[in-house]
Amino acid sequence: MNVFEPVVSPLSRWLDSGSARRDAWTRRSLVILVMAVLLYASFWLVPTRVLAADPTGTDTLKDNPNMAVNMAWTLITGFLVWFMQLGFAFLGAGLIRSKNQTNYWTKSFMDFCIASLGFWAFGFALMYGGSKLFPGLDVGNGFIGFSGFFLSGTSYDVSTIMMWFFQMVFAATATTIVAGAVAERMKITAYLAYAFVIGALVYPIYGKWIWGGGWLSTLSILGATGAKDFAGSGVVHMVGGLAALIGAAMVGPRIGKFNKDGSPNNIKGHNLPFVVIGTFILFFGWFGFNPGSTLAATDLRISVIAVNTFLAGVTGAVVALYWTFIRTGKMDIIVGCNGCLVGLVGITAPAAFVAPWAAVLIGATAVPFLFVTANIVERVLKVDDAVGAVPVHFGGGLWGLLSVGIFADGTYQGVKGLITGEVGQLLLQLIDIGALVAWVSLTMFVTFWVIRKTIGLRASRSEELLGLDLPEHGIQAYPVEAPAVAGAAETDKA
Amino acid sequence: MNVFEPVVSPLSRWLDSGSARRDAWTRRSLVILVMAVLLYASFWLVPTRVLAADPTGTDTLKDNPNMAVNMAWTLITGFLVWFMQLGFAFLGAGLIRSKNQTNYWTKSFMDFCIASLGFWAFGFALMYGGSKLFPGLDVGNGFIGFSGFFLSGTSYDVSTIMMWFFQMVFAATATTIVAGAVAERMKITAYLAYAFVIGALVYPIYGKWIWGGGWLSTLSILGATGAKDFAGSGVVHMVGGLAALIGAAMVGPRIGKFNKDGSPNNIKGHNLPFVVIGTFILFFGWFGFNPGSTLAATDLRISVIAVNTFLAGVTGAVVALYWTFIRTGKMDIIVGCNGCLVGLVGITAPAAFVAPWAAVLIGATAVPFLFVTANIVERVLKVDDAVGAVPVHFGGGLWGLLSVGIFADGTYQGVKGLITGEVGQLLLQLIDIGALVAWVSLTMFVTFWVIRKTIGLRASRSEELLGLDLPEHGIQAYPVEAPAVAGAAETDKA
Amino acid sequence: MNVFEPVVSPLSRWLDSGSARRDAWTRRSLVILVMAVLLYASFWLVPTRVLAADPTGTDTLKDNPNMAVNMAWTLITGFLVWFMQLGFAFLGAGLIRSKNQTNYWTKSFMDFCIASLGFWAFGFALMYGGSKLFPGLDVGNGFIGFSGFFLSGTSYDVSTIMMWFFQMVFAATATTIVAGAVAERMKITAYLAYAFVIGALVYPIYGKWIWGGGWLSTLSILGATGAKDFAGSGVVHMVGGLAALIGAAMVGPRIGKFNKDGSPNNIKGHNLPFVVIGTFILFFGWFGFNPGSTLAATDLRISVIAVNTFLAGVTGAVVALYWTFIRTGKMDIIVGCNGCLVGLVGITAPAAFVAPWAAVLIGATAVPFLFVTANIVERVLKVDDAVGAVPVHFGGGLWGLLSVGIFADGTYQGVKGLITGEVGQLLLQLIDIGALVAWVSLTMFVTFWVIRKTIGLRASRSEELLGLDLPEHGIQAYPVEAPAVAGAAETDKA
Repeated sequence: MNVFEPVVSPLSRWLDSGSARRDAWTRRSLVILVMAVLLYASFWLVPTRVLAADPTGTDTLKDNPNMAVNMAWTLITGFLVWFMQLGFAFLGAGLIRSKNQTNYWTKSFMDFCIASLGFWAFGFALMYGGSKLFPGLDVGNGFIGFSGFFLSGTSYDVSTIMMWFFQMVFAATATTIVAGAVAERMKITAYLAYAFVIGALVYPIYGKWIWGGGWLSTLSILGATGAKDFAGSGVVHMVGGLAALIGAAMVGPRIGKFNKDGSPNNIKGHNLPFVVIGTFILFFGWFGFNPGSTLAATDLRISVIAVNTFLAGVTGAVVALYWTFIRTGKMDIIVGCNGCLVGLVGITAPAAFVAPWAAVLIGATAVPFLFVTANIVERVLKVDDAVGAVPVHFGGGLWGLLSVGIFADGTYQGVKGLITGEVGQLLLQLIDIGALVAWVSLTMFVTFWVIRKTIGLRASRSEELLGLDLPEHGIQAYPVEAPAVAGAAETDKA
Repeated sequence: MNVFEPVVSPLSRWLDSGSARRDAWTRRSLVILVMAVLLYASFWLVPTRVLAADPTGTDTLKDNPNMAVNMAWTLITGFLVWFMQLGFAFLGAGLIRSKNQTNYWTKSFMDFCIASLGFWAFGFALMYGGSKLFPGLDVGNGFIGFSGFFLSGTSYDVSTIMMWFFQMVFAATATTIVAGAVAERMKITAYLAYAFVIGALVYPIYGKWIWGGGWLSTLSILGATGAKDFAGSGVVHMVGGLAALIGAAMVGPRIGKFNKDGSPNNIKGHNLPFVVIGTFILFFGWFGFNPGSTLAATDLRISVIAVNTFLAGVTGAVVALYWTFIRTGKMDIIVGCNGCLVGLVGITAPAAFVAPWAAVLIGATAVPFLFVTANIVERVLKVDDAVGAVPVHFGGGLWGLLSVGIFADGTYQGVKGLITGEVGQLLLQLIDIGALVAWVSLTMFVTFWVIRKTIGLRASRSEELLGLDLPEHGIQAYPVEAPAVAGAAETDKA
Repeated sequence: MNVFEPVVSPLSRWLDSGSARRDAWTRRSLVILVMAVLLYASFWLVPTRVLAADPTGTDTLKDNPNMAVNMAWTLITGFLVWFMQLGFAFLGAGLIRSKNQTNYWTKSFMDFCIASLGFWAFGFALMYGGSKLFPGLDVGNGFIGFSGFFLSGTSYDVSTIMMWFFQMVFAATATTIVAGAVAERMKITAYLAYAFVIGALVYPIYGKWIWGGGWLSTLSILGATGAKDFAGSGVVHMVGGLAALIGAAMVGPRIGKFNKDGSPNNIKGHNLPFVVIGTFILFFGWFGFNPGSTLAATDLRISVIAVNTFLAGVTGAVVALYWTFIRTGKMDIIVGCNGCLVGLVGITAPAAFVAPWAAVLIGATAVPFLFVTANIVERVLKVDDAVGAVPVHFGGGLWGLLSVGIFADGTYQGVKGLITGEVGQLLLQLIDIGALVAWVSLTMFVTFWVIRKTIGLRASRSEELLGLDLPEHGIQAYPVEAPAVAGAAETDKA
């Protein structure tokens, strides 16, 4: 019995109370939420539905004939980024047990659906309102934006909508990072509520600060202006990784993860090929993630970005695999995959600013960040991150933001790191990291706390032991089939 | 025993007779068919093989420098559409039993191979001959085309061949929709014969009417001209969905699907992750399907099309999932996936003609079409659609064609629906639906009838009970392996 | 016991000796190798890290505005080619047993990581140095190049780096072809050492001769100049296929593959869907492989190349499937998949030079090459090619190179085959084949011989019988899970 007794942190105990009326509240609050959203939506949609800036793009193309190739580039790379959702699903599903597969695939599919609707209704306007980057994004300040809700009014424009698509797939990526960390015990309703909040509020408001023309992008120190996070080591990966850490801490460890003395057990996944398949698909999507972030094929730097991304990923994989091999004599491909991913996360911020040799170095040095973060999460914080999402995304993202300040060689947009003798950029990166950690810690704690008090965060003990598939979904992932009918091979009577 | 006795409809009984000599005929007719095709092919190929319009594209590019970006766009989105074949394979395979996996994957892979060869030999010429859209497509009338056979003669041209590729992947999509509905009992030889007929004849002749400059595209009513089906809610999905309904009705229900009193049983699939993976891949392919249908990146409307597609898909998923959750208390991801797909099918016709808010509405309202159609097929018609292909593709496609006539906002190509106060477009859409249903019902009935009388439609009772994998393919999908050799871990003798 | 006694060829016996100190040497040599590479790297990187040609592409775009669409095309098709790695992994994994899955997925993931680092450090410079195709590739002769190491110095240029990416994914493809042939018994350390050597040396030096401006590309015979291998039937597929043959021969057959009398047994794979999924993904990637090889979307021939590729693939599948069906009465989808792949390999060299009707013919006639090569490998040479890599890639590649000399119709780049009455091109193709076979046989034999003598090629007998997953990786691919806890469904105590 002892093995299955979860280690309950004081934090958990304080939060847990009054679980009885939760299920009823879940459904009621859903209906209320949906009605509120619809009311709000009609407020925006009704008076503005006849407005539009350039909804067919005829004028846009006349002004800028390059828009055709740039839009094709942005959309196609955006499709690749979106496809990473499947990679995350495979990766996490492989690392957890069969009894929670339906639950995990449901979370992996529905989270981006819900987060993206939140980003359509609210997030995009909060993030890019006031940036004036495209039509319909006029109102906002350095901390938050206020225009572009529902892509209505003058944001019904081909460029603005292109921008929405590319930004939405990034918000969806940040969202789904959490699924793995809280797998096998967070309730599906709680998880989907979280997905709405991060896509509608948490992600976009921080994103505003650095990508939407906000205060982090205009700050100047020692001749350097604006923290730089090219494709989102911070915006996407640290945000997702930190949300994962907080979610995993607040939902508590899986039954059996930690022993009474606090030492961790290894809970095996159910399908190793899934892990590698997931990594392959994530890598594929990263070719959209980083190079696509130019939003333009006319920015020929895209080839350098693609190659830097690739080199950091493969170097991370090789270093992590052989490091482990030299220590243990075993080729642990799960470590290899995580090494690859941490290399990719690490290169995401600096991809455009560094040379290929630096990409190799950044990929290699991301690996210690992986190992150290993993150790801290599991051994020091005693948090059960079921698939290792925090070390990859938070650890790697941290290194990515720092490495801009170290390795940027000045060839692209004048961004210069320590290797050119400049220190200002590195200081800006540190401020960015501080702001990110403060904002995400606070808002995600509140988010999970409210969910815990209303819907409830965690499945019941009996549900967890049985697996979440039947209690929450009524569907077994791999049902045991009726045996072939005896005598089936007999002569056909027809 | 009763459970395994199929409900035989009078239609089935009338069709079934003389099953003895079929197998021999199968092979003979194959040889005859192949010889006939080769003869016909040489008739076209020999005299024309030296002709060509612009097989390298040098002149084409000189006339229109935008052709480079437009061709890249069309080809890449076409690749994505083709990749949907894998999505369909996963989706259907997940929803059926392990004993029919080899059979299902064979159908899923070979159907597009065979349909596309039919489309190369005949279909493309029947569909686009006379459209004069590209070189070599000169001869044809409002009902059928007569040039472009085998891509020979002046249709050996870079633009014509680009067009062929993009249209072929659509024909292949319509074809494979049927595989799921007739799964687990239709003979592989019968299914592949069907695939040839739909790709070579049924799909392209209807397609001619609306996409190849035929009568549906020139009809005028109340100021509106031409039924509009932007990317094929009708041409691809209703055609495929209706063919699926007719095929499933004529092959009869699986043993055990219906009880004696006509009430249906639920036959569980074997792999839930496959279902979600398939939906992910289909969604990914849809980013090619709809936005690619402009055949041009210089038509900047592609961003709006991509976002409309996305929003309808995610809204369909969310509405279907929560609808079911509120009714049953379970998060049924299979319903969620079908909701996503029916939203995508629904937005396929109107994707270019509506604003994002309408896309959300179309996705949401596609869900009742899904549920109602599913109920009619299973409870009223008592047809066994093994994977739910008819509700998604026929039900969703119907809604898609109608919604053009309702929500088109007049911004694109002047197409106006009810919301602009015009009623003509909706009437055209209704005529289109009528024509489609009449043509496909008639031709698919004849097709399956002929196959039934020659090759035979259905595997024998004993084969079905055993599963089709061993009798038809000689390959078990997941063979039981020999146990590891005892003593294998002993000291190595080498 | 007899069944499990491997047939040891005299070659094998001669090579095998002194296996005792190998494992220690493996690790030591690794450390030495890594140190040597780093030393060499710093030699190149330190003095040149401030040099660059056009690292942002501003001037490149000014000189050639088409570079935007061409670079987008080249990168995106390159991403698709890279994704073939996942296709190879699925295909091979499906055809082998579950006890070697972790091993196979590790090889499939890590091989491209390591080969690409070899190609970055050395291969690219050896292959394209002296070609002067892009900045930084100035030094080299007709046999080997000497500039562009580490993408440093003036090869830090957007065009050069684009070229590197596209060429690297081809090198990675050639590398991974071998994994399947040697599966289930080659040591992981040996395999990864091989991957480095082929990516750094073997592939690029032959590649130089034909694609890097080397002697095969300048040779003239009877009015024809240069052997033609448009997208690599020879460079990628024959090189990979021949390396696979030599690797499989030298590592020896799996225990149980051949009986004492030399007759082969069929060792069943573990997952048929994996085989079809792999083929789907490879087919998808081929749309990048062949059309992308123009490196330009402004070369509108890309549509013809895409369609030729497609037609050859589907024709190969149909011919192989029905050929087998007519002989055995079974629809063997594994044969269908291999037929598809051999058609694709066959069209790879001629894709740009022939008309669609010829593509159909080339796909169909590739099938006999598949069957004959398979027979020779298994029945004559008695080599155990675990997944049939040699017939597909070597057999198909051979036919591809020949078919350029037969079917090229003179419309593209003036390349003319027998059907135009010219014989010179066919002779050039034969010389190319001879050179390829000589170079690859020699170098791969030496490579595997050195690995055998140092690291050791083959896992021990006990490891092979148990499966390589636990001894080499410590990870079971599909671990047997603890049963659900009894009483888990009881009332929750929380």
